[in-house]
Amino acid sequence: MKAVYPGSFDPVTAGHLDIIERAARIFDRLVVTVFPNPAKAPLFAVEERVAMLREVTRHLPNVEVDSSEGLLVPYVRRVGARVIVKGLRAMSDFDYEFRMALMNKKLDPEVETVFILTSSQYSYLSSSLIKEVASLGGCVTGLVPPVVERRLRELWPVQEPGPGS
Amino acid sequence: MKAVYPGSFDPVTAGHLDIIERAARIFDRLVVTVFPNPAKAPLFAVEERVAMLREVTRHLPNVEVDSSEGLLVPYVRRVGARVIVKGLRAMSDFDYEFRMALMNKKLDPEVETVFILTSSQYSYLSSSLIKEVASLGGCVTGLVPPVVERRLRELWPVQEPGPGS
Amino acid sequence: MKAVYPGSFDPVTAGHLDIIERAARIFDRLVVTVFPNPAKAPLFAVEERVAMLREVTRHLPNVEVDSSEGLLVPYVRRVGARVIVKGLRAMSDFDYEFRMALMNKKLDPEVETVFILTSSQYSYLSSSLIKEVASLGGCVTGLVPPVVERRLRELWPVQEPGPGS
Amino acid sequence: MKAVYPGSFDPVTAGHLDIIERAARIFDRLVVTVFPNPAKAPLFAVEERVAMLREVTRHLPNVEVDSSEGLLVPYVRRVGARVIVKGLRAMSDFDYEFRMALMNKKLDPEVETVFILTSSQYSYLSSSLIKEVASLGGCVTGLVPPVVERRLRELWPVQEPGPGS
Amino acid sequence: MKAVYPGSFDPVTAGHLDIIERAARIFDRLVVTVFPNPAKAPLFAVEERVAMLREVTRHLPNVEVDSSEGLLVPYVRRVGARVIVKGLRAMSDFDYEFRMALMNKKLDPEVETVFILTSSQYSYLSSSLIKEVASLGGCVTGLVPPVVERRLRELWPVQEPGPGS
Amino acid sequence: MKAVYPGSFDPVTAGHLDIIERAARIFDRLVVTVFPNPAKAPLFAVEERVAMLREVTRHLPNVEVDSSEGLLVPYVRRVGARVIVKGLRAMSDFDYEFRMALMNKKLDPEVETVFILTSSQYSYLSSSLIKEVASLGGCVTGLVPPVVERRLRELWPVQEPGPGS
Repeated sequence: MKAVYPGSFDPVTAGHLDIIERAARIFDRLVVTVFPNPAKAPLFAVEERVAMLREVTRHLPNVEVDSSEGLLVPYVRRVGARVIVKGLRAMSDFDYEFRMALMNKKLDPEVETVFILTSSQYSYLSSSLIKEVASLGGCVTGLVPPVVERRLRELWPVQEPGPGS
Repeated sequence: MKAVYPGSFDPVTAGHLDIIERAARIFDRLVVTVFPNPAKAPLFAVEERVAMLREVTRHLPNVEVDSSEGLLVPYVRRVGARVIVKGLRAMSDFDYEFRMALMNKKLDPEVETVFILTSSQYSYLSSSLIKEVASLGGCVTGLVPPVVERRLRELWPVQEPGPGS
Repeated sequence: MKAVYPGSFDPVTAGHLDIIERAARIFDRLVVTVFPNPAKAPLFAVEERVAMLREVTRHLPNVEVDSSEGLLVPYVRRVGARVIVKGLRAMSDFDYEFRMALMNKKLDPEVETVFILTSSQYSYLSSSLIKEVASLGGCVTGLVPPVVERRLRELWPVQEPGPGS
Repeated sequence: MKAVYPGSFDPVTAGHLDIIERAARIFDRLVVTVFPNPAKAPLFAVEERVAMLREVTRHLPNVEVDSSEGLLVPYVRRVGARVIVKGLRAMSDFDYEFRMALMNKKLDPEVETVFILTSSQYSYLSSSLIKEVASLGGCVTGLVPPVVERRLRELWPVQEPGPGS
Repeated sequence: MKAVYPGSFDPVTAGHLDIIERAARIFDRLVVTVFPNPAKAPLFAVEERVAMLREVTRHLPNVEVDSSEGLLVPYVRRVGARVIVKGLRAMSDFDYEFRMALMNKKLDPEVETVFILTSSQYSYLSSSLIKEVASLGGCVTGLVPPVVERRLRELWPVQEPGPGS
Repeated sequence: MKAVYPGSFDPVTAGHLDIIERAARIFDRLVVTVFPNPAKAPLFAVEERVAMLREVTRHLPNVEVDSSEGLLVPYVRRVGARVIVKGLRAMSDFDYEFRMALMNKKLDPEVETVFILTSSQYSYLSSSLIKEVASLGGCVTGLVPPVVERRLRELWPVQEPGPGS
């Protein structure tokens, strides 16, 4: 079974990577696809997001990275998949995710959405929060893959000395 | 008892129409009133929203359509009503709706808000989601009244061939 | 329009009375009906709950009190009503109430359920919490009508001296 | 990939069957396993629940039915699976299901839990609600598979004449 | 123990003041700190927000008012505090507040966040709702301190005559 | 400031201990008080719960352990405290905890309840879940303090061999 894990991944976080690694153990093939969110001003270009995703998933042979635009379910069909993977973080994602899942089921009843619960240590993470903290000079080590941390530090050097320093 | 069902209705969905039909069976007279949401760029002009609402409620003799601006509760009083009708969709609307209901009760303790639960098959619908799907070329048949579907297709032709085609 | 406000009312609280008074202003006639909850050991007999409800609603000419058993929707039909009134308390009642409302709609699509939001000062009240506090000797003045407070004090005298005493 | 869909299934509902049919399209093999809930007095014996599940899944060649007791994750390993399937119904199941999923991940980090959203028309269904309605003589046609409806009617004949009769 | 109560306070509401008064009884010293929210266009300048906060907390000798920018936890350290106070309003603030609290704990594990529940009569208040109502000419007496009400009325005179007038 | 952390602690978990350690850094003195829950059949006697709490808090000089019965707020007053500490675990505890906090505020307006968020790695833990897993032979290492784990293993030896064994 082939599955698609869509997102804006601006940038990919440790929580996203956790979902990717777990989904890659469940499904034969997993396509991680960058869908730009037109309602938000992006930090990284789609190409750079794809490049970072490729780097952090290099150790997963059954994972490929792609980008697309437009409706999700026709895309899922075009790449030969029938399953959409979404991560859920405790209480925060239900509303939007469930409404999208029901809408996608209406648009194509044979495409299924499965939800994987984000590991509890990443339950508070989001790309937006990462960007907010990094832009204020906070340290995001461990919250994003090293390649993303390097890129964020190029944009915003760490200013916060940290506890005890 | 006369009731007011306020909303931005940009555009009216099958979920809105479900609430209107059910509220029209509960109350002697129902005024469906377009209140533009100043925080969102509109898709349809207020006049067009009113016209679409008039067309889809033509079969309901005790329903009239109106538009207004400003605070809701003085409007409710001006039209001689004492009840506000709001639709609730599963978990998504509680916070905003409940805070508005308590604020409206503070502004005029004699105006009551009653909530009607959206039918489960429409629980995921919203005007925003309809616009997002339609703008990407997705099919919204059954999710909006036919007159709205025609108008949306004039703006964005359907591109998605659908499952099996 | 005639409406039914069902509940176990074991005993009626100030929050219930708030809903009754507000529903009595919305609907032409309101039947407040005690449905015993077979899953809970009752504190007061159904007859006593009815008597207390009659006493606290004596000032509301369009309210009558009744008791019944079994399914709610056939009862609503039998008394000539088409609307069920339920109170919602902030976040606590959604799940059970919404599932019951959808089930009742399935059992009889022409019976509507409307929800009224409990006033914020009663949002934490429930008959169970009242009984728990009263049984431990706590003061429930203002949380239940005086007749209920007297009956609870006969069962459990107030022991808590209160702050500052 | 082999998956396990555990539950008490007392009895199986149309919502359960919806999850089974969708999971059977996602996974190569699906084991539906009755785990009795020791905290609830059962309506049907485990053997009868298994028999009803076998009957309603006869059309699904990659589904088998089993029963077990004790901890879930060692069972999942014993049957050679690595995925647990759970259904989510709108807002009602999050807390218990998420805590169980995190606990199961702690007990065996290589067993994954995936969640499938119950179709919106079944979002209010539960075995408990079915039993409550059926025991009061209500009609549950369409809410349970026909074989379950027959068994429930043997226990409790339908008394409710229905709307319009 | 010294604590910091951060917020945008644009403007301070009766709900904020309730939290300040209660936190001032719990902690030896409380710093109320205006952090501008860069994502929202402000109504009042930071200096004016600070001035209004100073006026409404004049009766609280262990409360001081400050303003800052950037990350919260290094600020908490700089002022010699180790506790962050946040108000919770029923169901509306959980997601954002809990994710911020977990992120802040990651950024500095020795800084604790404590939550105080907003009094039920203020559970629906927010600075945004106050501004929305006031800008439409609604009366906000009792929802904000008198000094804030005067300032809001200078910007937007009350137009709503109120019920019964 | 002296604070009380009440609970049934049947038995104390790693999540409870996390809250105790953090509250002990915030308040001058902390009383951890076992209140038996009369609605649940206990696993450990109150005396044993107190003994286990004493052992696991021995390293915290400003923490004492007590037990009581009846209403919480008069107890808080009797021990000379004015603050109640409660732990919140993501989405699961809001309803009950918030209603109790509002009721306790009504019973004694000068006693404050503060909430501390459970660390994300313990967000799924509860004494009930620990007992359920342990009674089925599951391994609870790391989820309870060692003294509690020993006691649970005396009652129920570990049967689950664990992954890979």
